Amino acid sequence: MTLMELSMYPIDKGESLSKYVAKLLDVINASGLAYTLGPMGTVIEGEWDEVVALLTRCHETLTPLSNRIIANVKFDSRKDAVNRLDGKVNSVKEKMKGPTRHQAD
Amino acid sequence: MTLMELSMYPIDKGESLSKYVAKLLDVINASGLAYTLGPMGTVIEGEWDEVVALLTRCHETLTPLSNRIIANVKFDSRKDAVNRLDGKVNSVKEKMKGPTRHQAD
Amino acid sequence: MTLMELSMYPIDKGESLSKYVAKLLDVINASGLAYTLGPMGTVIEGEWDEVVALLTRCHETLTPLSNRIIANVKFDSRKDAVNRLDGKVNSVKEKMKGPTRHQAD
Amino acid sequence: MTLMELSMYPIDKGESLSKYVAKLLDVINASGLAYTLGPMGTVIEGEWDEVVALLTRCHETLTPLSNRIIANVKFDSRKDAVNRLDGKVNSVKEKMKGPTRHQAD
Repeated sequence: MTLMELSMYPIDKGESLSKYVAKLLDVINASGLAYTLGPMGTVIEGEWDEVVALLTRCHETLTPLSNRIIANVKFDSRKDAVNRLDGKVNSVKEKMKGPTRHQAD
Repeated sequence: MTLMELSMYPIDKGESLSKYVAKLLDVINASGLAYTLGPMGTVIEGEWDEVVALLTRCHETLTPLSNRIIANVKFDSRKDAVNRLDGKVNSVKEKMKGPTRHQAD
Repeated sequence: MTLMELSMYPIDKGESLSKYVAKLLDVINASGLAYTLGPMGTVIEGEWDEVVALLTRCHETLTPLSNRIIANVKFDSRKDAVNRLDGKVNSVKEKMKGPTRHQAD
Repeated sequence: MTLMELSMYPIDKGESLSKYVAKLLDVINASGLAYTLGPMGTVIEGEWDEVVALLTRCHETLTPLSNRIIANVKFDSRKDAVNRLDGKVNSVKEKMKGPTRHQAD
């Protein structure tokens, strides 16, 4: 299975990007794949061909709206590993002392 | 304020990395900065100098343990914006139709 | 046209990765697309579908060799722009005072 | 020694970014560190503290000019390795069949 972290946005539309990210999230949600939205990107879990096909659909969604699109994508493919969206966080959680999330002091 | 997404790991220690990520999370937790652990990286919020000092502490933590360390770091600095760890996700959430998180079908 | 910067490697094969990068470069070279190898990744220029198909071929090349593959990929798609592999560097070169490359003092 | 690949830019200034990249290259050149400008980022070689100090100077250069700055930074730290800016490319070159650079067919 592959985890794909996607951060894709137009750079000719000013500093507020949430409108474009929301459009992509609707495309990601329609795929049926597992995903989680974070503050710096969305992580999606699927077979390689599924996540790459979704990457292309995201690019096609922004293409009519922007002249220049940037995407930063990280892939992590591991054999014989499933449910890694939760599994990776849980595996770290077991080994650390503090919480996985902390509000500022 | 700056959001820093950190993914740092040794590449000479085999495929299981959660032990090293947990060590870094303990360092991140000790900083007192707001953070959230995700499946592909940890996002930390602070002033530029705070997050960069933390990046260096993370690197110093792994240096005695590994011969080769890789880090992928994304920064997003925005003036007059605070509590962006939750704020960015909430801003997208308001504009999208589906949920911010979805288990596989 | 799209520029794709690709950095893909196994993380279960120890710290020396050049053997695997060389295999991917042979796959990239066979594509006929323009590319340039740099110290932190290879940049390839082509239509979106061409560069993404090449990304998949690179992943297929490493899959039989490794249990866990990491890829960091940056895309930059700009309409009505061609020959950007040289063009982007030249555009910066015209505006800067020093050289585009410098050996350590 | 550490290789740092830096891609830093404002996202509130429209799609043409070479003016800002050129400003950063002047800052990088003034550092005296070895660097090479590529189509998707600039790679700088130095000790960890040197490259991170330079990262901060780059951020300080853009801060007065933009309301929102994005940076994507990759680090590769390897003990007992020097002149890696050329060394990494040469190490791959020896093992591959084709050239390290190719114009489109």
